[in-house]
Amino acid sequence: MIIIKGGVTAPKGFLASGVKAGIKKSGKLDLALLYSEVPAVAAAAFTTNRFQASPVKVSKLHLKNKTHQAIIVNSGNANCANGKVGDKDAIKMAGFIAKTLLLDKKEILAASTGIIGEYLPIERIEAAIPKLVGDLSETKSGKFAEAIMTTDTVKKELAVKVKLGTATVAIGGTCKGVGMIYPLMKTEGHATMLCFLTTDAAITKGALGASLNEVIDDSFNMISVDGDMSTNDSCFIMANGLAENKKIASKTSDYYKFTQALKFAASELAKKLARDGEGATKFIEISVTGAKSKEDAKVIARRISTSNLFKCCIYGEDPNWGRVAAAAGASGVKFNTERIDIYLGPIKALANGTSVKGFDKGKARAIFKKKNIRIKVDLKSGRANATAWTCDFSKEYVAINSEYST
Amino acid sequence: MIIIKGGVTAPKGFLASGVKAGIKKSGKLDLALLYSEVPAVAAAAFTTNRFQASPVKVSKLHLKNKTHQAIIVNSGNANCANGKVGDKDAIKMAGFIAKTLLLDKKEILAASTGIIGEYLPIERIEAAIPKLVGDLSETKSGKFAEAIMTTDTVKKELAVKVKLGTATVAIGGTCKGVGMIYPLMKTEGHATMLCFLTTDAAITKGALGASLNEVIDDSFNMISVDGDMSTNDSCFIMANGLAENKKIASKTSDYYKFTQALKFAASELAKKLARDGEGATKFIEISVTGAKSKEDAKVIARRISTSNLFKCCIYGEDPNWGRVAAAAGASGVKFNTERIDIYLGPIKALANGTSVKGFDKGKARAIFKKKNIRIKVDLKSGRANATAWTCDFSKEYVAINSEYST
Repeated sequence: MIIIKGGVTAPKGFLASGVKAGIKKSGKLDLALLYSEVPAVAAAAFTTNRFQASPVKVSKLHLKNKTHQAIIVNSGNANCANGKVGDKDAIKMAGFIAKTLLLDKKEILAASTGIIGEYLPIERIEAAIPKLVGDLSETKSGKFAEAIMTTDTVKKELAVKVKLGTATVAIGGTCKGVGMIYPLMKTEGHATMLCFLTTDAAITKGALGASLNEVIDDSFNMISVDGDMSTNDSCFIMANGLAENKKIASKTSDYYKFTQALKFAASELAKKLARDGEGATKFIEISVTGAKSKEDAKVIARRISTSNLFKCCIYGEDPNWGRVAAAAGASGVKFNTERIDIYLGPIKALANGTSVKGFDKGKARAIFKKKNIRIKVDLKSGRANATAWTCDFSKEYVAINSEYST
Repeated sequence: MIIIKGGVTAPKGFLASGVKAGIKKSGKLDLALLYSEVPAVAAAAFTTNRFQASPVKVSKLHLKNKTHQAIIVNSGNANCANGKVGDKDAIKMAGFIAKTLLLDKKEILAASTGIIGEYLPIERIEAAIPKLVGDLSETKSGKFAEAIMTTDTVKKELAVKVKLGTATVAIGGTCKGVGMIYPLMKTEGHATMLCFLTTDAAITKGALGASLNEVIDDSFNMISVDGDMSTNDSCFIMANGLAENKKIASKTSDYYKFTQALKFAASELAKKLARDGEGATKFIEISVTGAKSKEDAKVIARRISTSNLFKCCIYGEDPNWGRVAAAAGASGVKFNTERIDIYLGPIKALANGTSVKGFDKGKARAIFKKKNIRIKVDLKSGRANATAWTCDFSKEYVAINSEYST
């Protein structure tokens, strides 16, 4: 597998665009379109929030269709908690694209991100459709990536290539979302995280769904910015088969190669979100090892990644590791506290549940002064591991989120 | 029931003191003692954090004793994650008091609050014991309340009186803890929350435990400052019988009167913690009504009370109620989103899961400009209710917690 340039248009046959529809008050790009020149199979994972935004409901319904060719996305408005009007607006968004591109409405998926509880300016979206479709190009993945941003400070794209037999398959992706980030997405199933993955692999809809399901749990479902789960989290993948590899229909070695590449791409994109977390000054990787089960390891890693106190001390470059211990202990997972070790980078702070004598606060502080910080919690009770990613918690986060809707 | 002046020494026969032992770098009061002149029965609830501080372990053990006469408390150091040394130090703290007051070690309970993973300066504590014991007085509940503070900005005391038959029973209390506040304490069972309750009621140890258990779930277990559960949370109650009421031994009408008064005192103390939350500028009450079960109502209220995004918009006086809806939906509780109403003060923002047309943002902003803010979430699906208390999330919270251990 190799990393290549580009994003969602790196695989063959995908075009993208991003335009200004006037949804955002800032006047920035806010409407995006992703298009496959040939019918593709699609899979998606959506937020498990009880409140589901209208585009999530509509996309879930449309996903029952066998093939898909386009995804329309707006930023600046979540189209959530808008009742029947919201549902109709989401259907209209898909309808505009279907009509213009001569497709069936059900071949179109939709996503929204932005404020909850305000109605979509649907006329402005309709007015922007001709330009949105007209601009479709394989060189515009960057515009697409920009148009889906809310409080993101940088666009986030990635593409990889992997050999499957004699064919070369590309996977491209872009994502957004640096606040209200604590996704727990399921394949049945604000700033929201959105991710759009494309591939020219030939793969059945069923195998694509299975692969995405494997990938999502170890990538996007392991990041946190603020512990707030959105009503709009969505991760889509479209596969159009243009790479002409032997079609993946079951769990063959090609399936695993493909899934591995997809997991790499999804994890790298997920990390980009945590790195750009609202107000973030540091990127934090939390590894939990030696757990009895993968679920235990995940629960502990995720609990630490949402500890405000822990994330404040990272911001302050203060190696107050007791907050890691307290968060692990608050996770609800049963573990033997007399076996647990905690490392700050390479420095052991806690050994067998007891603070290490001679723990060098100065050295630990030097580690906390870096941009990238690794925390390891070793339970020494089993073989299961998990890794979560997050960022620090800064005054800037509060500033960003205390003035969002105004 | 009437509110009276004072704190833990308001009931008959209780003395308290607070002195400087040199545990805190700030040089403030940091060692406190609560004493009943006659043997009392005691009950307590402790953190459910997997990591339990040494004083928690020691107090749990000592609680097996039939009677108790004193509680020693230090601030500035949590005595947690200090292994066997920590356990021995907590036992020593109890031992110092036992020796000086000619009591059995098991009649003494202990609590600590402060930084995790640093050893207690046990010699300094020992050196301060004579003054600590010598200062015991019924006029020093304020010194006690001050000596248990960490990042608290005000001391928190309360006392009430209630008639039980011909006798008048007093209940007094003090508490601390305005960060690392998301307690979930159980009667089997950092800044921690600590609460010390006293009463001169005549009540059996069993009935006292049952009463405390009823009270704790609706008071301290319903507050949050930052969603971080401490390793040291403890709530103690001692009852010495000096009010000479007819002894409460089972669930009689006196038991319910007593429990009601205790619940009032505990809830008021809990609210004082939320009101003084680290960096807080606002006090927030979240009521969830119409739930199918009390547990559902509690889980939703607690989830909203820990939403960073919601608490940031309260700080910014921005009536972005979509964050309340998103947090409720992320709680894991199954409810019908098409029935839910959300109120900001008296203003309805969401009706039957749909944003209210004509929602007046200006009026809502005026409500958010107040010091005390009420949010109501009505699920309209049952008869169960719960109320949680929290504070807003400010830049000052981040400032306080990014420099704690240095």
